[in-house]
Amino acid sequence: MASQHTRTVFFISDGTGITAETFGNAILAQFEFKPRHVRLPFIDTVDKAHQVVRQVNHVAEVEGRRPVVFTTLVNVEILQVIEDGCRGMLLDMFGTFVRPLEIELGMKSNHRVGRFSDVSKSKEYHDRIEAINFSLVHDDGQSNRDLDEADVILVGVSRSGKTPTSLYLAMQHGLKAANYPLIPEDFERQQLPSALVPHRKKIFGLTIQPERLSEIRNERRPNSRYASLDNCRMEVAEAEAMMRRAGIRWLSTTTKSIEEIATTILQEIRPERLEY
Amino acid sequence: MASQHTRTVFFISDGTGITAETFGNAILAQFEFKPRHVRLPFIDTVDKAHQVVRQVNHVAEVEGRRPVVFTTLVNVEILQVIEDGCRGMLLDMFGTFVRPLEIELGMKSNHRVGRFSDVSKSKEYHDRIEAINFSLVHDDGQSNRDLDEADVILVGVSRSGKTPTSLYLAMQHGLKAANYPLIPEDFERQQLPSALVPHRKKIFGLTIQPERLSEIRNERRPNSRYASLDNCRMEVAEAEAMMRRAGIRWLSTTTKSIEEIATTILQEIRPERLEY
Repeated sequence: MASQHTRTVFFISDGTGITAETFGNAILAQFEFKPRHVRLPFIDTVDKAHQVVRQVNHVAEVEGRRPVVFTTLVNVEILQVIEDGCRGMLLDMFGTFVRPLEIELGMKSNHRVGRFSDVSKSKEYHDRIEAINFSLVHDDGQSNRDLDEADVILVGVSRSGKTPTSLYLAMQHGLKAANYPLIPEDFERQQLPSALVPHRKKIFGLTIQPERLSEIRNERRPNSRYASLDNCRMEVAEAEAMMRRAGIRWLSTTTKSIEEIATTILQEIRPERLEY
Repeated sequence: MASQHTRTVFFISDGTGITAETFGNAILAQFEFKPRHVRLPFIDTVDKAHQVVRQVNHVAEVEGRRPVVFTTLVNVEILQVIEDGCRGMLLDMFGTFVRPLEIELGMKSNHRVGRFSDVSKSKEYHDRIEAINFSLVHDDGQSNRDLDEADVILVGVSRSGKTPTSLYLAMQHGLKAANYPLIPEDFERQQLPSALVPHRKKIFGLTIQPERLSEIRNERRPNSRYASLDNCRMEVAEAEAMMRRAGIRWLSTTTKSIEEIATTILQEIRPERLEY
């Protein structure tokens, strides 16, 4: 353990630990440093906190230096056990910001654990599940029904990133995201698929560099016409020309993550999802 | 604006702002306080930073109190513009932790923007997209092919939460997650679907309170036999009995979020995804 990694980083939470890990990783990305990651979720009793202390201190001993410990513990008693016993470098992510906010807002914090209490009664959560179902049914142009209910309709050539982006928009933002492939038949007609025409305002296009597209398609169908660079070049050129003619906003997914694509789409099509 | 909301909270980032918003919201959840949320992503030039300053200061004036401003800005020059000009309560999420870490680790931070640089070259990102595709093809027992490649196979009655959980495990953790419904035919035979038997070790069950299941199913098919409380009670009892006989680990999704379900599954089936 000590040889492979310079140091271990712990993410400790009374909930899932997703917030601690997301944020901690963003901070660690600022360093040229590959630590071992240990997420310890659901640390919601004093007993479990004592186990955590033993685990962290054991690692400190084995590695010969103190682990970095990100915590998003809400329960004061549990946090205290960690603070008192743990021989790590403690970065208490909640306490650091909650205390100044208590002063600024003139109110005490409620020490509520997790983002997800009483999920079964939450409209937001319900809408999110509905959106996932909608996006599955409307993946890859499978259904034209209820397209007027869609919040956004993604178009693009096969393997340009439509499916993961749709599912991400549904899962993280509760957006009903349909997606529709642009196929050679559309290019011959030089028109958008007719089912989409009434919904032009909520259409967003994804494009991609032909070289990258050819790579991706070759993984699926090696040495096919479908994956050939010539064909990818043709399809991408046709798709971009079509989107330009139809006045559809689009972006290139070549070097972008799902999260970056989704954020750009929100800015363009659903800015109210960034301000609410 | 001033009447509906007590105060506006900004999330400002040179990347997507997802980290700032996730973490900021976790902190705000500690307060009985419903602010207006404004996420400002891709603030990656000094010009955009000046626009942000104007926007925040305008809101401060209209609302008559200073907005709360969470920033995850990596670029020092851009952060400086905000620090100098902005009449909000600035919570600099990176600076707060990055500086102590520089000392602890004995190295300078690299001020790299975002988690997602050169996505097209990242194996981790590639695996995530592959996992999403796998999970889509293996949703709802659609395919028995390549089940040996699955990292986890979720089973449960219809509408117990299998699909959103599978997609979340794929999207967030790069896990190839198949899911398989348990249906009346399986209950008659009193056996797991035969395609699953060789993979018992990676099966995880989802169950749900019959009352809640009936509610969910009634939204889809009102007043059907499928949605009736009697039928839901029968299916859930049969499914739980089957999982117990087969020695399958399971949990109840009734009050749990996708994130909580997924984290529990990781702990049980893929603990190495929490330690890496």
